[in-house]
Amino acid sequence: MDRQKLIDTIRTKSSFLCVGLDPDPARMPPHLGKGPEAILAFNRAIIEATSDLAVAFKPNVAFYESLGADGWAVLQETMAAIPDGCLKIADAKRGDIGNTATRYAQAAFEAWGADAVTVAPYMGRDSVEPFLAFEDKWTILLAATSNPGAEDFEFHGADEGAPLWRRVLEVSGTYEGAERLMYVVGATRPEWLAEVRAVVPDRFLLVPGVGAQGGTLESVCEAGWSEELAGGLLVNVGRSLMYASQGFDFAEAARSEARRLQEAMAEELDRSR
Amino acid sequence: MDRQKLIDTIRTKSSFLCVGLDPDPARMPPHLGKGPEAILAFNRAIIEATSDLAVAFKPNVAFYESLGADGWAVLQETMAAIPDGCLKIADAKRGDIGNTATRYAQAAFEAWGADAVTVAPYMGRDSVEPFLAFEDKWTILLAATSNPGAEDFEFHGADEGAPLWRRVLEVSGTYEGAERLMYVVGATRPEWLAEVRAVVPDRFLLVPGVGAQGGTLESVCEAGWSEELAGGLLVNVGRSLMYASQGFDFAEAARSEARRLQEAMAEELDRSR
Repeated sequence: MDRQKLIDTIRTKSSFLCVGLDPDPARMPPHLGKGPEAILAFNRAIIEATSDLAVAFKPNVAFYESLGADGWAVLQETMAAIPDGCLKIADAKRGDIGNTATRYAQAAFEAWGADAVTVAPYMGRDSVEPFLAFEDKWTILLAATSNPGAEDFEFHGADEGAPLWRRVLEVSGTYEGAERLMYVVGATRPEWLAEVRAVVPDRFLLVPGVGAQGGTLESVCEAGWSEELAGGLLVNVGRSLMYASQGFDFAEAARSEARRLQEAMAEELDRSR
Repeated sequence: MDRQKLIDTIRTKSSFLCVGLDPDPARMPPHLGKGPEAILAFNRAIIEATSDLAVAFKPNVAFYESLGADGWAVLQETMAAIPDGCLKIADAKRGDIGNTATRYAQAAFEAWGADAVTVAPYMGRDSVEPFLAFEDKWTILLAATSNPGAEDFEFHGADEGAPLWRRVLEVSGTYEGAERLMYVVGATRPEWLAEVRAVVPDRFLLVPGVGAQGGTLESVCEAGWSEELAGGLLVNVGRSLMYASQGFDFAEAARSEARRLQEAMAEELDRSR
């Protein structure tokens, strides 16, 4: 899905919702059982219940990888269950160099069937460009995340006015294929989001942290909006949607939550800025 | 394998060789064929031919992950083929937070059967401590790598005398379970290795870049040696050993290369410092 298609999809669906798929058997409806088949059934039900209200789905690869070889099949089947009209994001946070990075990209884009993959920037250019070499795909680089530990390194240099996350935005913009970059920016501190938007006015931002982690949709839009990108935001919601109910109505409850979010997003899209 | 056991193993074997297992079908001996079974046969032959000369093996997870579910089984079987007297390092460079990090740790330590895993520090404390919570396991954090892109971010702040890699060493030393940390430091620029050693005198360093990438064993030992840790170095050699021959004698050729390296390491261990 290219940039224009993504913008069109956001406008058509009046939504910029990304549904996180982090299936935790301990929090899934008990009637589904446990094990790989239960996880796949759960994912399929959530996808089916929300795909007209969402523009993207984001399976968190750790939740599949920890299941061993079975998990691999569940991840592939989950990706296959996401309709082609939605962006398929593998949240993998990979980061290695050269031909190793190419193999991680092949895993994400070819073996799993993702349209986009999250990547950690630590090792620099030769750890990112192998992902960017895939022309129809997106690479979503970690920038300023919303976890407490983010201050350890992502803000290194901030006292001199040059936090690491800003350098990540600036330097990665010079990489070959940079037009296929998006960035991860947490929702919990809108002031960072506004600074990020000022540095990368023309990039989509994947924003986790709305809902369970305490960020609000309104503050995210206020800080991070880009009108020419139909907002330029993919707001990820995971737990509050996936685990809206542990009963037989879990898919219905997930849909209600998705609908509530989509309607709030439609209001943001309607607002002139 | 705890710290004392690792030191004893190095002294007993007169070796601190880590054998990288990055099996690339395009470079493997043609008579083995291609596909998952050929890769496993190749790995097993390399392990069998070198395990008395090495103290660690390091499968590069990307090379297995890109094969899909089959690759997972090959990774598990490869780990199982490494004798228990050798450290099993999953080179995965994972990095995510909280319960996601715990799942990556479970994948590495439980599903794959690794003793150690490489981790990227970008997201900070809550992305590293979940790995350190595994008491009998090692977490090997990226510090100063030897790839060209390392300068993009790992050296951010260097002009003010505080490169990011130094902050990684210093801050991670305060993490809960820090005694189970090692660090990745590239071999190609010994001056960094000396600086790293000065900051972390009591940690093992995993050092790639000797051989194919141009670092020399002598300069690595000169710069990074810690006498009380029997050197405190795990020197990784991959391509020059795995692909020493593409003929029927590939395992024998790998053994010769391992022997050559081990003998040079024995000399370093014998040298009084």
